[in-house]
Amino acid sequence: MGTRERIVDAAEQVIREFGIAGATTKRIAAAAGCSEALLYKHFPGKEKLLLAVLLERLPALGPALTRLRLAAGTGDVAGNLTAFTLAALEFYTRAAGIAAGVIADPSLMAGFRAMLAASGSGPHLPILALAEVIADEQRRDRVDREIDPGAAASMLMGACFHRANLSYYVDPPGDDAAWAATLVDTLLRR
Amino acid sequence: MGTRERIVDAAEQVIREFGIAGATTKRIAAAAGCSEALLYKHFPGKEKLLLAVLLERLPALGPALTRLRLAAGTGDVAGNLTAFTLAALEFYTRAAGIAAGVIADPSLMAGFRAMLAASGSGPHLPILALAEVIADEQRRDRVDREIDPGAAASMLMGACFHRANLSYYVDPPGDDAAWAATLVDTLLRR
Repeated sequence: MGTRERIVDAAEQVIREFGIAGATTKRIAAAAGCSEALLYKHFPGKEKLLLAVLLERLPALGPALTRLRLAAGTGDVAGNLTAFTLAALEFYTRAAGIAAGVIADPSLMAGFRAMLAASGSGPHLPILALAEVIADEQRRDRVDREIDPGAAASMLMGACFHRANLSYYVDPPGDDAAWAATLVDTLLRR
Repeated sequence: MGTRERIVDAAEQVIREFGIAGATTKRIAAAAGCSEALLYKHFPGKEKLLLAVLLERLPALGPALTRLRLAAGTGDVAGNLTAFTLAALEFYTRAAGIAAGVIADPSLMAGFRAMLAASGSGPHLPILALAEVIADEQRRDRVDREIDPGAAASMLMGACFHRANLSYYVDPPGDDAAWAATLVDTLLRR
């Protein structure tokens, strides 16, 4: 395993243990068994290191979106969307700690926001991708055309993101799978 | 203004400036013009002080829920729900920084979680309250009975919470009011 990989692994582990606020580059370098200077050679700022953890170590939303896109027009729309909803819930549950840490640190957030703007990236993109799949299923007449795809995607992703955050404070009521299925049924009903 | 009020005001101001991680009791006491000992006399833990800021200084969700409850059976359901959605979005936008700070700090979160469990409180309660209003409107036949009230409430509140968080990273696309109205229309369509 190369140094870069060791650093990303160490960052993930240190964040899980100490929170973002406690995930200093000093601590991460120590966990990775390298110097802080070497860490900075691979990651010029803490925000770049956090982005690497988010993009490379979390169960990604990308593959779940790809599966959903490939399933368009096949199988049961509600079943496909429910499976995706559960994957989104898992992703946000894992990502919530890091996302919270970025928001909680105004200077880190400023760097993160600038980096996202420069790369045209951001956490809003999965909503747009989900909206596209819903619009595609509408064109196939498998989803009610009265639904606004963007609104439906905002609500489905938002409910997952919220539930993932709520689970830090309380045990969310009900089973995840039943919860996801009820959401999709309420959204798609004709 | 009493000492307690001065401390809560100071905490809100220090959190806004330095983030939760930088909102030390030392800094808050200095901003309030009191000793740390006096701060601890009023607030035995940082989590109790944060809860006071959340409950006493933020635009509350409670009054918006009360307005929605009182409006049940009157006026336009979609209009009532859209106004509530905008109030929820404003609340979550103001609360997101503190909520993120609590999640980002594992030891603070543990204390917060225990305190919520002991008081039977928590950030999931507004979803249940919104679900009750939707169920009430269903009994009046003003909302489609095929909708699951809990799922509808999860999606509406979740979308607001998510958009509030997204606004830290990027400028969310579209106007808030139009966004809220489209959400409610997609949810309530018959």
